[in-house]
Amino acid sequence: MTVKILKQASTAETIARLAAIVGERHVLTGAADMAGFLREPRELFVGEAACVVKPGSTAEVAAIARLCHETSTPLVPQGGNTGLVGGQTSRTPDSIVLWLGRLQAVREIDVSSNTMIVEAGVTLSRAQDEASRVGRLFPLSLASEGSCTIGGNLATNAGGTAVIAYGGARRLANGLEVVLADGRILSNLSKLAKDNTGYDLNDLFIGSEGTLGIITAAVLKLYPKPRAVETALIGLASPAKAVALLNLALDHAGGEVTTFELIPRIGLDFVFAHAPGARDPLARAHAWYVLLELSSQSRQGLGERLLDLLSAAADQGLVEDAAIAASENQRAAFWRLRELLPEVQKHEGGSIKHDVSVAIADVPVFLNEVERAVSAAMPGARMVPFGHLGDGNIHCNVSQPIGADKAVFLSRWDEINSIVHGIVAQHHGSISAEHGIGQLKRDLLPQVKDKVAMEVMRALKATLDPNNILNPGKVL
Amino acid sequence: MTVKILKQASTAETIARLAAIVGERHVLTGAADMAGFLREPRELFVGEAACVVKPGSTAEVAAIARLCHETSTPLVPQGGNTGLVGGQTSRTPDSIVLWLGRLQAVREIDVSSNTMIVEAGVTLSRAQDEASRVGRLFPLSLASEGSCTIGGNLATNAGGTAVIAYGGARRLANGLEVVLADGRILSNLSKLAKDNTGYDLNDLFIGSEGTLGIITAAVLKLYPKPRAVETALIGLASPAKAVALLNLALDHAGGEVTTFELIPRIGLDFVFAHAPGARDPLARAHAWYVLLELSSQSRQGLGERLLDLLSAAADQGLVEDAAIAASENQRAAFWRLRELLPEVQKHEGGSIKHDVSVAIADVPVFLNEVERAVSAAMPGARMVPFGHLGDGNIHCNVSQPIGADKAVFLSRWDEINSIVHGIVAQHHGSISAEHGIGQLKRDLLPQVKDKVAMEVMRALKATLDPNNILNPGKVL
Repeated sequence: MTVKILKQASTAETIARLAAIVGERHVLTGAADMAGFLREPRELFVGEAACVVKPGSTAEVAAIARLCHETSTPLVPQGGNTGLVGGQTSRTPDSIVLWLGRLQAVREIDVSSNTMIVEAGVTLSRAQDEASRVGRLFPLSLASEGSCTIGGNLATNAGGTAVIAYGGARRLANGLEVVLADGRILSNLSKLAKDNTGYDLNDLFIGSEGTLGIITAAVLKLYPKPRAVETALIGLASPAKAVALLNLALDHAGGEVTTFELIPRIGLDFVFAHAPGARDPLARAHAWYVLLELSSQSRQGLGERLLDLLSAAADQGLVEDAAIAASENQRAAFWRLRELLPEVQKHEGGSIKHDVSVAIADVPVFLNEVERAVSAAMPGARMVPFGHLGDGNIHCNVSQPIGADKAVFLSRWDEINSIVHGIVAQHHGSISAEHGIGQLKRDLLPQVKDKVAMEVMRALKATLDPNNILNPGKVL
Repeated sequence: MTVKILKQASTAETIARLAAIVGERHVLTGAADMAGFLREPRELFVGEAACVVKPGSTAEVAAIARLCHETSTPLVPQGGNTGLVGGQTSRTPDSIVLWLGRLQAVREIDVSSNTMIVEAGVTLSRAQDEASRVGRLFPLSLASEGSCTIGGNLATNAGGTAVIAYGGARRLANGLEVVLADGRILSNLSKLAKDNTGYDLNDLFIGSEGTLGIITAAVLKLYPKPRAVETALIGLASPAKAVALLNLALDHAGGEVTTFELIPRIGLDFVFAHAPGARDPLARAHAWYVLLELSSQSRQGLGERLLDLLSAAADQGLVEDAAIAASENQRAAFWRLRELLPEVQKHEGGSIKHDVSVAIADVPVFLNEVERAVSAAMPGARMVPFGHLGDGNIHCNVSQPIGADKAVFLSRWDEINSIVHGIVAQHHGSISAEHGIGQLKRDLLPQVKDKVAMEVMRALKATLDPNNILNPGKVL
């Protein structure tokens, strides 16, 4: 048995000590000043906190962690505050929100090694721009890229639309700098593509949603910037045809397949109804669509490869019609149809969200089963499943029946979740393919996760954060 | 303070209990029967053990772990016994060697999801063949692929010649089944491309060299089989030109660059001197060579892209001459020049090995510094640095001076290692890019690794293997 004696500190004393670390103007305590840090984008969670602290360096983050560790004060790391599961929202009035947005340095760009060292507070779009300036691509791409930060992207192992070719955030970091719960700094800003000296510590922190350590900087992997991009919007009859098309595309173009997004007709109907200027590039309606993009380093041949692919797909009866973007404007218009999907659902009333994945081969059966079960539970509910078919990750959203009461519909969130997640479990799928667990799915996790996996996660948490100060009440 | 009371068991009793788990004929105790499991390929380490046990199922592995956990008996997992750092060799007479070669099932191949579930004892070449039979590629490729096993590949995060395009073993597994030290089974045989439900446990076990858990099965990622392959042997003046060529190749061909291996002239001289039938495809000698391979899903255009690349490289003064393989036989002959390099060094006397990596941009300076320092310490020593320039991973081997005494030369192994590793450290490189730590580099690790990283590794080991039974004396 272990007896812990923890130093207790008053909130006022803690705030004074924080101010001594970062300077008074970097500690916010007023309700109005803190408001923007306490509510997340969907407003599902509104938090409380003693203060928001804004460190300007890794050393300051370390000093803050040390203080919180000593005083058992909850510390909630936050980047761009764009997370969708409440992982960045503090829960208790004694919590400290650790805003990492002042860690803004691009410490190094090594063009020849294809690496870039950036601090946690750099936004994703700035990281993309910095890479682009030296002729490189940082391929992570998300809806919130203008405000989300690299620290948050790594803490949540962010996904997005380019995962099929480049992987998610996890695969795009060679090295990390991490402040541990007790303020020790783990320095592993490795530019190495290969390093087998001991355990893979980086991947323990990536995706841990700030519960095991605070990522303060990372070595990002860069890629050559593609010279040619071909984009097609393809109409087809079913998800089964889309899966067959995916494999045909991989067979024809391999790593050149940089986007493979599934869209249901109802999603486009919503877009045409609510987004001014959006128009259908295809002559008639199809039950399903794929937004396909191929990228190549070679200026020649990619257009022909896309035509070959589409013609082989037509021969096999996989596609009904396709439009190929003939200009950058058309390409942007195709992408807009996909990117507007989350937005336009808001105009159709309530939407119950599911960020799920199953094995790619199982997607068609899975979607069928979900449609049947949700319709049985709630006649008239409108399934709007869309997203990253190339990764088996479909955002299986449910829009309310036409004319239904939004509040009544949303009151059935947990019931509908549990129907969908039950089918996910039967297919050994994931209830959080890319958004994480945060607060939103914390209570669901033990129901779907392997029991031993839960035990190991709890043991790791206790080892790395014995006083449970790092983002408590999230994930576990 | 914790007081541990461990049950002590006699070796005879342990062996009897093992026989009850796996059947008597699957427990080897005779010196002759065990010999092949106690010495590793280079014979740097010859071990001792109480017995070799050969479980036939995951449940049997779990029962063995439980027994060893209870009795604090060292358990040394072994696959194909091809590791180069003594990780698979047991060290003490009370140890049990856990041979996983009977876990032979290919549990599932899902062509449409591009996944394959195999057990730990399946050899790498069989995994490649199974994938090939269904039109897929399992891209991991190593010199020892005929005998090394998937379990060992994952436990050591094996690298090889295709890492530049497909990553190492870590990136090729979507899910794992792992027996923990106390016999619990972690079931995470996930076929999912994306899953953000909690911590990334798989990557903790991958590369941990059997010290944190025993991998019994894995979900492997498959790729479409390339339709076209183009292979060139390129003569050039320096590693700096080779790095420039690498970036030009990535710029021209991106993910189609599936091999980029650096070879020094002395390596080819060794091959021509000792390998019957090997011949130089180029008209004159060059200081350095690159073996470049491009792979594509498209039959058309790859040859032209290679020619374009070589012509652009010639325009920039990067390459002196190049031969392109015109047939599968020629391609095999080019590869043989590369693959014979470790073998032919044996005919030139002693060879002191270094499996190191640095950032790609640093390779040229690094090689210069190593050459200078080693020559100063040992005039006449012959540097034979070759390998995976695409990953910054050069096997910086040193052949003995001509006419030197082999034993005297090899007695300076640690001294030469420490010179090379000192330069590696200055470049923030890795002293084990792909072979792991095992026994060979265990004492070096604390000298080169971040202090906090060592502390975290030790804490993880204590958490997951509190009785220190899993491959004790390896890595940490």
